[in-house]
This record gives sequence, C-alpha cells and structure tokens, in this order.
Amino acid sequence: MDTIIAVDIGGTQMRAASYAPDKLKPIKQKKIATLASEPGGLERLTRVIEEVWPNGDKVAAIGLASPGPLDPHTGYLLAPPNNPEWRNFPLAPRVSEHFGVQAFLDNDANLAALGEYRFGAGKGHHDVMYITVSTGIGAGVIIQDRLLQGFHGLAAELGHSIIDPDGPLCSCGFNGHLEAFSSGPAIVKYVLGELEAGTKSSMRRPRRGKREGNLTPREVAEAARQGDALAIQAYRRAGEYLGIGVASFLHAFDPSIVIFGGGVSQAGSLLFDPFHESLKKRVFHPRYLEGLVITTAELGDDAGLLGARALAEMKASS
Amino acid sequence: MDTIIAVDIGGTQMRAASYAPDKLKPIKQKKIATLASEPGGLERLTRVIEEVWPNGDKVAAIGLASPGPLDPHTGYLLAPPNNPEWRNFPLAPRVSEHFGVQAFLDNDANLAALGEYRFGAGKGHHDVMYITVSTGIGAGVIIQDRLLQGFHGLAAELGHSIIDPDGPLCSCGFNGHLEAFSSGPAIVKYVLGELEAGTKSSMRRPRRGKREGNLTPREVAEAARQGDALAIQAYRRAGEYLGIGVASFLHAFDPSIVIFGGGVSQAGSLLFDPFHESLKKRVFHPRYLEGLVITTAELGDDAGLLGARALAEMKASS
Repeated sequence: MDTIIAVDIGGTQMRAASYAPDKLKPIKQKKIATLASEPGGLERLTRVIEEVWPNGDKVAAIGLASPGPLDPHTGYLLAPPNNPEWRNFPLAPRVSEHFGVQAFLDNDANLAALGEYRFGAGKGHHDVMYITVSTGIGAGVIIQDRLLQGFHGLAAELGHSIIDPDGPLCSCGFNGHLEAFSSGPAIVKYVLGELEAGTKSSMRRPRRGKREGNLTPREVAEAARQGDALAIQAYRRAGEYLGIGVASFLHAFDPSIVIFGGGVSQAGSLLFDPFHESLKKRVFHPRYLEGLVITTAELGDDAGLLGARALAEMKASS
Repeated sequence: MDTIIAVDIGGTQMRAASYAPDKLKPIKQKKIATLASEPGGLERLTRVIEEVWPNGDKVAAIGLASPGPLDPHTGYLLAPPNNPEWRNFPLAPRVSEHFGVQAFLDNDANLAALGEYRFGAGKGHHDVMYITVSTGIGAGVIIQDRLLQGFHGLAAELGHSIIDPDGPLCSCGFNGHLEAFSSGPAIVKYVLGELEAGTKSSMRRPRRGKREGNLTPREVAEAARQGDALAIQAYRRAGEYLGIGVASFLHAFDPSIVIFGGGVSQAGSLLFDPFHESLKKRVFHPRYLEGLVITTAELGDDAGLLGARALAEMKASS
C-alpha cells in the first residue's frame, strides 16, 4: 500500500504526519496552531498536509480526526466548537478535491479508539470499548474489528448516556448524563457545591467573580492524596457513576477490553478503586467480567493521529 | 445453497421448519411441546428436526433459537430457566454431531432482531435495533448488516440497562434496569403499589394470598382505555422510562430503525405516546431522529424461527 497521511485537528494544534505501510514512525510530521476562530482554516489544513507530503511517493488516502459533531459518511463537519467558518462544512470532500486523493473524517474519540485498537492498548482484541474521561466524556467502540459509526455517524456517544434521569445538567444542556457525573468539570462542580453548602475541606472556594476554572480536577486529586475527605468523596462519586455507566455499556456491547484515556483517568486509584467496586456491584451477570481487560490508553496524544491513519488505511484497502 | 433447518425452542413449544433457499414458505414445519423441566429434551429436539428434514435434499445448516443465557460462539446453553438438564449444555455441538451438519445457536431476542432485519420490519436497513417489551425486555442489534453478539455472546442486553441507579428491583435481582420500569410485570407492580397506597382506581387489588398474576398488563391496558387514571399513569410511566432508555440506546448505537415487539408493545398509544414524548425530550442531538423509523415487529411468533434460519444461512455462507 502507498503512503497514508493523517491529521489530528485539535482545539489548539493541528498535527499531521505521513506514514509508510507497516512503519509506526512517521516519514514526516508537523504541528501548527489550529486558530479555530480565525478564518483560513482550510488553507492551514492543506498547508500542513503539504508539509508532510512524502517526496515522490504516492499517497493512498488522507485520514482526518476532528472534534464532533460531524458526519463520517459524508465527511462534513456539522457544528465544530468555536469555528463558525466550518459549520456544515464539507471538510473531507474539500481536502480530497484539493489533493486528488481519497479523504476520510471521523471524530477524535472514535479515532482514538481505532488508534488504540490498531496500535495501542487494544492490539489483538476484536471488541474494544474506549472511554476518554476529560473535560467531556467521549467514547469509541470497535465491534468485530469494525469501528461503530452508526446510521448518522453519531454512535458511541456514551458520555451522553442517561445515568439518572433527574441527575445534574450536562454540558450539552440535558440532564443526568454520565459526563455530568464523572468528567473533570463535574468533579469540580460537585466540590464547589459542597463547599458552598459549608462542607469542611482543605480546598478553597474561589472568590466571587472568579471562574470555576480556578479549581481544577488535578487540584482536587492532589487534595485527595493529602487526605481531604471532600476531595476523596468527589472522585469516589465520579468513579461510582462511571461504574454504573460502564456496567450498562458492558450489557450493551460486551467487549473484551475497556480502555480509559483522558486526563481525569490519570487520577488512578482515586477514581478507579470506586469504579471497580461499583462496576462489580452493577454488572448483572459475572460472565461479562470473565477475561475482560480494563486498562489505560497507551498512545497518549498520538491516539487521534494514529486513529486517523488507521481509518484511512482501512477505508483505502476496503 | 442447500436447505436450512430452523428451530425456535420456546418456553412451551419447540417449532421447527425447513426452508429452501429464497423461499419464505417452509418445505415442512412441525410444533411439539418443549416440556423444559422433563428429561429427554435433546431427544425431543432431534425428533422435531427429523420431522422437518427435507426428502432427499442436502441440509446446509441448522439454526437454533433459545432463551438465554447462552454462548453463541460455542453453542452452549448456560442456565436456561426451568431446565436443569440443559445447564451448561453443548446444544449446538450435540445437534451438529447427531446430524453431521453445522448447527448455530443464539438467544431468542437476538434472533428475533435478525429475523425482522432479514424478513420483516427491518428489511432494507443496515443498522437495526429490536426491542421486545413483554414479561421481560429483550433486545437485538444489527450493526452494518451484522448481528451484534459480543465477546462473551452477551451483548444487546438492553433490558438490563441501568436507567436509575436507585430504581426498582429487576427480575434479575439488580436495581433500576429498564425492565424494572417498562416490562409487563413492572406495569402491574406499579399499579399494585399504588392501590396498596390507597390510590383510587377501577382496578381491584387481588385479595391477600392470591398471586400478582391476577392482574395482567392487558387488564391494566383495558382499564386505561376505559379512562382509569391510575392505569393510564402506569402505561405513561412505562413509556416515559422506555423513552429515556431508547434515547441512551440511540446515542450508543445510532440505528436507522427501532422495532418494537412483545405483548406490551401492543398497548399502542397508551405506551407509545408517552414514549415518543419522552424520547424527543431526551435525545441530545436532533440528528439522531432524522429519518429514524420507529415501528412495530411484523413477524409475530415467527420472528425467532426466521431469525434462526437467517443465522444459519449467514453462518453457512460465510
């Protein structure tokens, strides 16, 4: 197979790389600023692709990872955050037209799942569930070696599973989603609510007028490691709800591996001890857990890029 | 392709049929009593298969539908209800050995989904979700023309999705599952609880010592059609929670069609008006509903049998 080019369009950086078949190390790679809210996004994208274009070699396909919502079947971005220029924008078709090469698009969580499945923690598994716990909760699912995309390309939005119909408000505007219980902002929000209600803690409530951003999930984790009861409880609650969510996802998808990515997952046992306890309590048949691997992602920041590469390879060879 | 034989092993009847390729009408068909709790189940099964064996024609494969839990990958029954003889029993291997023909097993809900996809309401769709609302809530999911089975063969147990972590007890012994809100027994249990609490209704509380079975979901539906407020509320509640569950399932699977089977689904608008209202309120992006078909099953009692046929056809030709 010919060279594959992959681009991960992140919130702050666009990262591009070209790959020879069966080599993990890129031929060329390049990072530039995304500047999402400034005009000229397509020009920046084509430029970074040109920068990694291999000398002389033929390019088989281009894979693109972007935050959603988007339509992987048509290659259209629907409503990317902070980027009015790319609302309902035919990103993959434009890239394909510009370079005369097939281009494929999917969202960053699906492609991180695909990357981990092909090159990372999920290697050798056929049924993979990837969950990133960060500012939001994203997910991607591989079923029998195929990426689950769905009819509208909107499958595997597991962060927006309803965990408790009367639960707290999610960033998406709906109530009781997993993301509203177990994401980084949900952990901080819980702490702030408890501080507001007078719960004693070593953590300080930000002064009036300051943003919630003053307290970070990482600071809550540090306080928890120092023994702060509220901080420990905040992670315990997040882990318990994550266990409830994942129990339902096992009942739905029955994977052989669950891979956790994202910054909040790095809180380690603070999150995962209560998670495992809750999962075991909630899974309705012990067989789901037989041989099930629960682990953390291996590819770090490269997951989206390597997933975009895997997408392009799969689509180009099918 | 040669003849396919399908058997649907139900709680009360075993139904078998043989099918010529591309013909919907069976060559032969036969029903016998299942007698699950009596010894000799395998002999009854082989006998009913012999009865539909085509004269002279070669048989390509045998498909078997049974209540779960079971392992479709090995063809073992794990713990069928009321049948100690078939605990951890190699059903498909034994049938295969006896007849010298490949045999494939999956659970009745998965195979009803496959039947509706191939021959019923789901024809022409590639991403199908089938949900049967009855004594329990079962489901089957087709993703890109393939039946979702899962690593342990336990995928698509959507009736055991956790809808509310503190919700009522499910038949499986765990709390807050969809089945504990929206199945037939859940509707009856809600009514009985309200009657116990003194809510006025045309429905009568069974006398002490009588079983809950005295009041049926059908009787509650009849009372609702006569205007009984409690009966209407019981179906409204079941429909609301069904909408909450299905919203999460759309976020997870993003199908192009949702097919409802099972007796409780026949309550019509009593269940489905509140269901649709709740679903629209809970789906977090309107795109999931674009072009989505929501409909009722077409194959009735034949769904499992035709699904077993479709399974055998698919596996024999792959």
